[in-house]
Amino acid sequence: MTDRLGAPRAEPIFERLALIGVGLIGSSIARAAREMGLARTIVAIDRDEGVVGRVRDLGIADEATGDALAGVRDCDHVILCVPVGACGTVAAAIRDGLKPGAVVSDVGSVKASVVAQVAPHLPEGVAFVPAHPVAGTEHSGPESGFPTLFLNRWCILTPPEGTPPEALERVRAFWTAMGSNVEIMTPEHHDLVLAITSHVPHLIAYNIVGTAADLETVTQSEVIKFSAGGFRDFTRIAASDPTMWRDIFLHNKGAVLEMLGRLNEDIALLARAIRWDDGDALFNLFTRTRAIRRSIITQGQETPEPDFGRRRPD
Amino acid sequence: MTDRLGAPRAEPIFERLALIGVGLIGSSIARAAREMGLARTIVAIDRDEGVVGRVRDLGIADEATGDALAGVRDCDHVILCVPVGACGTVAAAIRDGLKPGAVVSDVGSVKASVVAQVAPHLPEGVAFVPAHPVAGTEHSGPESGFPTLFLNRWCILTPPEGTPPEALERVRAFWTAMGSNVEIMTPEHHDLVLAITSHVPHLIAYNIVGTAADLETVTQSEVIKFSAGGFRDFTRIAASDPTMWRDIFLHNKGAVLEMLGRLNEDIALLARAIRWDDGDALFNLFTRTRAIRRSIITQGQETPEPDFGRRRPD
Repeated sequence: MTDRLGAPRAEPIFERLALIGVGLIGSSIARAAREMGLARTIVAIDRDEGVVGRVRDLGIADEATGDALAGVRDCDHVILCVPVGACGTVAAAIRDGLKPGAVVSDVGSVKASVVAQVAPHLPEGVAFVPAHPVAGTEHSGPESGFPTLFLNRWCILTPPEGTPPEALERVRAFWTAMGSNVEIMTPEHHDLVLAITSHVPHLIAYNIVGTAADLETVTQSEVIKFSAGGFRDFTRIAASDPTMWRDIFLHNKGAVLEMLGRLNEDIALLARAIRWDDGDALFNLFTRTRAIRRSIITQGQETPEPDFGRRRPD
Repeated sequence: MTDRLGAPRAEPIFERLALIGVGLIGSSIARAAREMGLARTIVAIDRDEGVVGRVRDLGIADEATGDALAGVRDCDHVILCVPVGACGTVAAAIRDGLKPGAVVSDVGSVKASVVAQVAPHLPEGVAFVPAHPVAGTEHSGPESGFPTLFLNRWCILTPPEGTPPEALERVRAFWTAMGSNVEIMTPEHHDLVLAITSHVPHLIAYNIVGTAADLETVTQSEVIKFSAGGFRDFTRIAASDPTMWRDIFLHNKGAVLEMLGRLNEDIALLARAIRWDDGDALFNLFTRTRAIRRSIITQGQETPEPDFGRRRPD
């Protein structure tokens, strides 16, 4: 395991980096960028004055402010780290502060909607390179970030046609320096891929935790006690930030509902197999799914330790 | 964290313990029972001669055999650690070897079906105390067991009416000594509780992993690469033993299909909320589910560390 990033760069990639929204992702970027020397100055911006104060106390940025328009002035890289539903509003608020040659990016889990919200607000001469680091934990807020969050994780870039190649290369270099593997695809394909690898899994997890809490035949206390049988695995992602996830579902509606439709078809077949005692159908599926986990482990996206390497609480 | 069990007992609870089926659960019982001195002699029985050989090599039992009928002779505690679909066959095979006063138990994840399969085969004077330790990992086989598997986990007993109190107390003492909290309920209620806390979560996990592998718009390689967005959490339980899980679904059909029906109702409402932009409905659910994870952590059934305390693979 690599606990730390490599040696800091001799020359930063950006002079002045603005992070708008300093939660888990924004604060992890601040920490990694500082540790790796990726920007000469890091400006942390959050509309919540409480967060601004905590960022100052944590000392993870050079400057911290609640004023986005003033904060982005003279910055050559501006990253929106806010819920995807807020991207349009933030872009409108900062447009007059953006300097020519600046590169704007984001970290949203939905890309087509973010492009549609942000691009119209950007002045001539400002490049937009949307990004999505596929990394996170179930915790939120500036205290929850850490500099190795992006290490060995994928970061997907969805540059619109006409993006200046040097802007794309700087953003790629930035994420690579934080330890990520970078992949480029269209916003539409991104939204389809993430619908199945992230959005629908979250929806299903939220759903089962909600259903379990509402049963009248099994008490909530029983659900909690006996959760080690599998249920508790779902509660991790069902503990993710409610605002962030509300926005993701509303902004990736089409792909989420389509993937959910597929899932519903398949679960109907499984229910039928159970009802009709078709053990072979069940056995064959359960054998196939085992192989997929092995691939995820082999490709470094999952720990090989049993039970996620969970430590047992006392 | 407690890595080790306490001091071994001065006097064992059972003279001669037979474990039929030496996979993850059977081999963990063998290890824990030996470490705690819960039986004077441990007899490991498996119909797979390869497993019998590996058990001998591992040295986790005093005797190892492929012959169940001979293996249970003179044993005062016999635990069936086989897939729930095999319990009736095993009970029929050992009935003539069971000695009067012996206590038979099992570790199956379904209880009503196991009681129906096993009870008719047991001779007069042999008690049956069905048990279900709610513990496990996604790994299988005698190598995957460890003595602390049951520590701080719940073990549910479902004794039929007329079970001699002293048989029940000995089984309770046995599981308590291995570190478990013991709860008693009816087989029917057990099956309902486990349907929602374990069986349906597994079914949903198997289903989404299968669906994702079959998409034509997203490649399997993309699913694997970008699995850190949430999908990989589901692959752990979808990597569980296929035979064991096929049997669970076929033997807890009623409760599984009923709980799945609930889940489908609720997911339809969620899909509708997404389609109609009802952000408040989503936000309210996502806030509620966060609180449930906190309770599971508080009650010692889950680690408080972010991301399950996963170590990042290199």
